[in-house]
Amino acid sequence: MPAVPLSSIWRWFAGCTVAESRNLRLAARVGDIEPFRVMDLLARARTLEAAGRSVVHMEIGEPDFPTPAPVVEAGLRALSDGHTQYTPALGLPALREAIAGHYAEQGVNISPERIVITPGASGALLLALGTVLNPGEGLLLADPGYPCNRHFARFIEGVPQAVPVGPESRYQLTAEQVAAHWQPNSAAVLVASPSNPTGTVLTKGEITELAAAVEARRGCLLVDEIYHGLVYGEAPPSALTVTDRAFIINSFSKYFCMTGWRLGWLVVPEGYVRAVEKLAQNLFIAASTPAQYAALAAFAPETRTILEERRAEFQRRRDYLLPALRELGLEIPIVPQGAFYLYADISRFSNDAEAFSADLLERAGVAVTPGTDFGHHRAERHVRFAYTTAREQLEEGVRRIAEHLNLLSTEPDL
Amino acid sequence: MPAVPLSSIWRWFAGCTVAESRNLRLAARVGDIEPFRVMDLLARARTLEAAGRSVVHMEIGEPDFPTPAPVVEAGLRALSDGHTQYTPALGLPALREAIAGHYAEQGVNISPERIVITPGASGALLLALGTVLNPGEGLLLADPGYPCNRHFARFIEGVPQAVPVGPESRYQLTAEQVAAHWQPNSAAVLVASPSNPTGTVLTKGEITELAAAVEARRGCLLVDEIYHGLVYGEAPPSALTVTDRAFIINSFSKYFCMTGWRLGWLVVPEGYVRAVEKLAQNLFIAASTPAQYAALAAFAPETRTILEERRAEFQRRRDYLLPALRELGLEIPIVPQGAFYLYADISRFSNDAEAFSADLLERAGVAVTPGTDFGHHRAERHVRFAYTTAREQLEEGVRRIAEHLNLLSTEPDL
Repeated sequence: MPAVPLSSIWRWFAGCTVAESRNLRLAARVGDIEPFRVMDLLARARTLEAAGRSVVHMEIGEPDFPTPAPVVEAGLRALSDGHTQYTPALGLPALREAIAGHYAEQGVNISPERIVITPGASGALLLALGTVLNPGEGLLLADPGYPCNRHFARFIEGVPQAVPVGPESRYQLTAEQVAAHWQPNSAAVLVASPSNPTGTVLTKGEITELAAAVEARRGCLLVDEIYHGLVYGEAPPSALTVTDRAFIINSFSKYFCMTGWRLGWLVVPEGYVRAVEKLAQNLFIAASTPAQYAALAAFAPETRTILEERRAEFQRRRDYLLPALRELGLEIPIVPQGAFYLYADISRFSNDAEAFSADLLERAGVAVTPGTDFGHHRAERHVRFAYTTAREQLEEGVRRIAEHLNLLSTEPDL
Repeated sequence: MPAVPLSSIWRWFAGCTVAESRNLRLAARVGDIEPFRVMDLLARARTLEAAGRSVVHMEIGEPDFPTPAPVVEAGLRALSDGHTQYTPALGLPALREAIAGHYAEQGVNISPERIVITPGASGALLLALGTVLNPGEGLLLADPGYPCNRHFARFIEGVPQAVPVGPESRYQLTAEQVAAHWQPNSAAVLVASPSNPTGTVLTKGEITELAAAVEARRGCLLVDEIYHGLVYGEAPPSALTVTDRAFIINSFSKYFCMTGWRLGWLVVPEGYVRAVEKLAQNLFIAASTPAQYAALAAFAPETRTILEERRAEFQRRRDYLLPALRELGLEIPIVPQGAFYLYADISRFSNDAEAFSADLLERAGVAVTPGTDFGHHRAERHVRFAYTTAREQLEEGVRRIAEHLNLLSTEPDL
């Protein structure tokens, strides 16, 4: 049975920094930063496809929809008009104003001066953490959570402090947990709403309590809202509605379907703008100019119409996939309200998510992401399903998984 | 006399992290990272222009030429074809191969696997330093040098170790200086050829000696070649011709005139690819997709024809500006062979480069960059002129500077 390859490759990767460092100078942080397993898995899936195999992709963390036409057209115009030189480090003033307008529509009054345009949400995370986190200082974050978060903290010599979360808090950090897990060296707390890999949102009341708990400890709150807009049912408010002391990370990648353009933004509290600007000048110079001009069309009514249709489609996919996976014996104890992920407990079939994922890909032609990408807490017993593919593909995936799981349960000693 | 504003603003900026931190959590690194003065100066120049003043721009570190038409057209095609999603973290395979082909034309055989596409040279610097430099470890670099270099090292808690350089070594680090300045905690050496702000190049022999000196100390050599291609006279070879153990940083910004696209690359030594890939996955996800497709046209013959014409124009500008500035009493002791900068000693007129630059902007309408952007060694006695503007503008600038310097020398106690 060919279940070994992928997970053994990961183990080799984890070990290879040690092997390499026999001869090469390699910083210690490199050994602590893990590969993004979903990317390796995607590469393996592409290899299988190149060899003629069919793969259902339920691993990919980006919308399968292209960038909306009005945004692409704005990008085309920008290039034709010769907008190919640097913008200011904080971003195009018109785009900062457009984002402020976007918040104003939600009833939040934010000065454009507090809005920093960044190279993706990745750039926003690096700026925010670089601004507030000293070496040796702790960043509390939910486990499971977006894998890069803990690595950003580690990259700048901060200390990721994982807090195990589960269905009892809808996989979200709570104010009580912040109180319980706060260490003498803790300095900041990062939450995500909607969250990845679990797709859950924080209510206004929960954010208020979290902000108060962090404030009481003189810490800094960072809120990842990159899946904002991708919510099914009542949309949660931005954390900006309850606090003006948090760093808010957002992105044009997910709701606006602009992943490859690499454009995000950061809302910074009063008093931090100049510090963040200095870092942005030095680390990035500026975000992509064509992308910034394109994004000016992201808030236009015709773009919003397209995006709202896509949101409805994501909701239909979730409403199909969630009960279908539960039916197969995969446990998804809560209904995720946002993003495009389902985080499923595979305990009934395996306690090795990497082997399970590798096996599912190699034998059944379905790509999913092992929980180990998202942390350590019960990670080996979970996988993440992304519904970033068409309904027919999801149905085919469910059919293949059903067949595969049936086989599994008849194989002794798997 | 209105000479005070800009330099006093900078002093306020330097102090403001302290003031802010009374109430806000601010990481120590922010206090050590200086603003990019040239950007503040550019902003002030734009304000003056908006108020109706005429400004000659000799401060801007980007080509005044737009991106070549074949590259823009490739970008337009990429957008029209829907290339708006993530690429692999290491970059588009076709672009990595195109860059390998570019080196092959120079007689250097580099596997595309060692070429990493990055969000600008900024991304390449962050990846390279993040890979090799531990907290507390030293990075030797030339002072004066590109300002962000020392801040990248500081950002990841490394220690920039500035080595004063002057005209006697054409402002380049030498193997002897590496030997003399190497500390017990030193780990890496960064050189640039052509250099910013001084425009000088390293010969093949000098790179060979530097590589040996670094190797003998089990250090890591990083070579910034982002101004490669912009050389007047005999072009120096890439450091890749003499060593395959160095990290080479390059960019599509300068020679290829693609600043706003934010695209660069990093050539990594054997054995480092996987480490760099892990960091790239986590820090950036990937570089801009439209930019990568556009850059595929950067090496096409019709693009090269355009770029070579521009190179000739830069050379004509240098050949005009260098003697013109010398005639005014500004000392430029060596002839820079590359980039688009002249680094001039202003000692005859001032020992305060920031006040001198502010004064020149406010009173004479000429923007130049104070030496203090590039380090500390005799920085107060130097300014950088960029010839990134048309010949007529340079002539007007020289006329204004001449008038201003004449005034200065008649004013007592400036």
